[in-house]
Amino acid sequence: MLITVMKFGGTSVADPEKIQRAAERAIAQRRRGDAVVVVVSAPGEMTDELIALAERVTPKPDDRELDQLVSTGEQVGIALFAMACRARGAPAVSLTGPQAGIDAVGAYGRAQIRRIRTRVIMKHLKAGRIVVLAGFQGLHPSGDTTTLGRGGSDLTAVAVASALKTGRCEIFSDVKGVYTADPRIVHDARKLPRISFEEMLELAGAGAQVMQARSMEVAERFGVEIHVRSAFRPAAGTLIVAREDLMLEKAFVSSLALDKSEVRLSVVGVPDQPGVAAQVLTALAADDIPVDMIIQSAPSQAGVNDISFMTPKGHAVKAKKALESVAKKLGAERVDLHDQVAKVSAVGTGFRHSPKIAATMFSALAKHKINIHMISASDLRVSCVVDLQNGETALRALHKAYGLGKGRR
Amino acid sequence: MLITVMKFGGTSVADPEKIQRAAERAIAQRRRGDAVVVVVSAPGEMTDELIALAERVTPKPDDRELDQLVSTGEQVGIALFAMACRARGAPAVSLTGPQAGIDAVGAYGRAQIRRIRTRVIMKHLKAGRIVVLAGFQGLHPSGDTTTLGRGGSDLTAVAVASALKTGRCEIFSDVKGVYTADPRIVHDARKLPRISFEEMLELAGAGAQVMQARSMEVAERFGVEIHVRSAFRPAAGTLIVAREDLMLEKAFVSSLALDKSEVRLSVVGVPDQPGVAAQVLTALAADDIPVDMIIQSAPSQAGVNDISFMTPKGHAVKAKKALESVAKKLGAERVDLHDQVAKVSAVGTGFRHSPKIAATMFSALAKHKINIHMISASDLRVSCVVDLQNGETALRALHKAYGLGKGRR
Repeated sequence: MLITVMKFGGTSVADPEKIQRAAERAIAQRRRGDAVVVVVSAPGEMTDELIALAERVTPKPDDRELDQLVSTGEQVGIALFAMACRARGAPAVSLTGPQAGIDAVGAYGRAQIRRIRTRVIMKHLKAGRIVVLAGFQGLHPSGDTTTLGRGGSDLTAVAVASALKTGRCEIFSDVKGVYTADPRIVHDARKLPRISFEEMLELAGAGAQVMQARSMEVAERFGVEIHVRSAFRPAAGTLIVAREDLMLEKAFVSSLALDKSEVRLSVVGVPDQPGVAAQVLTALAADDIPVDMIIQSAPSQAGVNDISFMTPKGHAVKAKKALESVAKKLGAERVDLHDQVAKVSAVGTGFRHSPKIAATMFSALAKHKINIHMISASDLRVSCVVDLQNGETALRALHKAYGLGKGRR
Repeated sequence: MLITVMKFGGTSVADPEKIQRAAERAIAQRRRGDAVVVVVSAPGEMTDELIALAERVTPKPDDRELDQLVSTGEQVGIALFAMACRARGAPAVSLTGPQAGIDAVGAYGRAQIRRIRTRVIMKHLKAGRIVVLAGFQGLHPSGDTTTLGRGGSDLTAVAVASALKTGRCEIFSDVKGVYTADPRIVHDARKLPRISFEEMLELAGAGAQVMQARSMEVAERFGVEIHVRSAFRPAAGTLIVAREDLMLEKAFVSSLALDKSEVRLSVVGVPDQPGVAAQVLTALAADDIPVDMIIQSAPSQAGVNDISFMTPKGHAVKAKKALESVAKKLGAERVDLHDQVAKVSAVGTGFRHSPKIAATMFSALAKHKINIHMISASDLRVSCVVDLQNGETALRALHKAYGLGKGRR
């Protein structure tokens, strides 16, 4: 029995009409002869609406009860989806995480899938039914329903594909695939037929939120290819595959990302002593502040230097506070926050062996008189922080400089 | 351990503010030392909204999937209720029907509670937690969540009170109790401290929808007293108790009801032969048409008579069609439908032994020149059908005639 796992995100099942279209996709796949498992998210904004409702009851809802509440969103999604299938004559059954045998452990609100007991799913598949699974949830050992945290429906789809040994998982959403750059900014951006998990993870880190990082890591580990595609158009999207499946003979840039969601923080005038950077980062880690592009500048004056990094806007205030406290202890001069910045990144493969890729970025930006505030580079990514107002110009300039436009490769 | 079962209906938990007030009621009871089980309905119009959503997906949603969908309403209610308790420092836990050990059998959408395994509920009560149970749902032997049909949350409350042997169940809603007549129509209507199950069932049949009939039957059978009271006011409401608990020495009227929701149907000119009434009623039963006050008139002309009855407006068209078909077979003259009618009823005890109660009704109506179309009487109820425009006048006249006003008894 060939099994296809299809995951539909919240925007793909946002209203009854979209649910019907998604159901038709699943039925078409079933009629081609495959057994079909559909993983469904909560329709549209339902999860956020339920959280808002909870916050009207109490500003700090209990985690266990929040899971009891929020998990109804996916339950609504699967019931409506299964109804739509059945109304079109296709046998279908909806299953919540607990009903489907998805066992989860760990803290409420961010549990991990421990195992999937596939007996119930297989029974329904063998009976010819489309199995419609609630994403984002599982059965806690206590008997409670728990949720898996952000991106959890993708994770459910990947874990189910792995448990059913399908080798692939189709992720339907409102994006058509992975592009060489954001097509809303770069008019000749191209959809990539394939990309590696590593590059996707770097793209996620560079601010391109196609898929949640944790699900990609799990997919790679368990050998599940991911097909990211549009819920509203029939065309194929982008296949995310393991690195060894891609031609690696030369360094190349796959895709660019522009991230305007971060701020730059600097501790200025830090004594140039061992252990200082560690103290700064420990303070940030203690407050769960995500950090990207940590850079310690070469001392501009004798015995002092600056430590800078990027962090999401939502963490800026907390981060500044933590830094000011550590700056005082270290005898640093001050803490600077720059919020008019953008991070532009090139993601690809083999960068370490090809300084040309970084060089191309710097010269393209220079040609457009775009000043670079920070640089970081790895084997898979080169990122530059520039003024916010130059972000889109930078993206377009780099897309051209790397020859990523339609028909160029 | 003294256990109090408190049930809050949809209007009592319609929004976060009302949920908070209801939670405070439960906490107050807990702090008085009782163990507390709360049964919660879906907030406000949520059940109807979910059904409307399903009908946008398909006009005939599958029953199993409709239960999967609709049962989320109560799940939202219990999670919010438990959060509200915890936010006020009262340990609480929400449990869906399946989580609570409520086993149900029968058709989806109108299942019956088979048994309640109280282990989980008792564990939480012993740990000092307020147990917040989803009404209206149970675990089907298939592993599915199923709903109990109309009035199902009352039924859950009664069944839980019976399983926990509490002897009583508090039903909180937007009514303050059972009145001698509708206080919106009769200004001196009085709240009754007690009433019997039989009288309540007659009142329900007479159109007063305080509580669903099935839950009262179950409560009576399993010896659970019901306290119907306001969710928004502290005062005691009306206790519904077994008949033997009331003083029965004399016939008395407890309460009046006015029902404007029915129509009168008559098959006119039916041959006066044995088996004719049976044929008429069989035709109605075949179409599931509810029937009240069946009256076969004495023959007004030789060899023919009329058969009349009352039925809810929603069934009028279907009933008329069924009657016209049976009228043709019987050679009856015609079928009449009167929709400008109202049914006024007196409910009490010992009527059979006291013709005075029926006589008082007829003379009070005569005094107000109100014409009576139909009469029916039992030991517990006397009903008259009058013109719709006379309904409220009749109710007020009877309230006075029976001496039911404030301070009279």
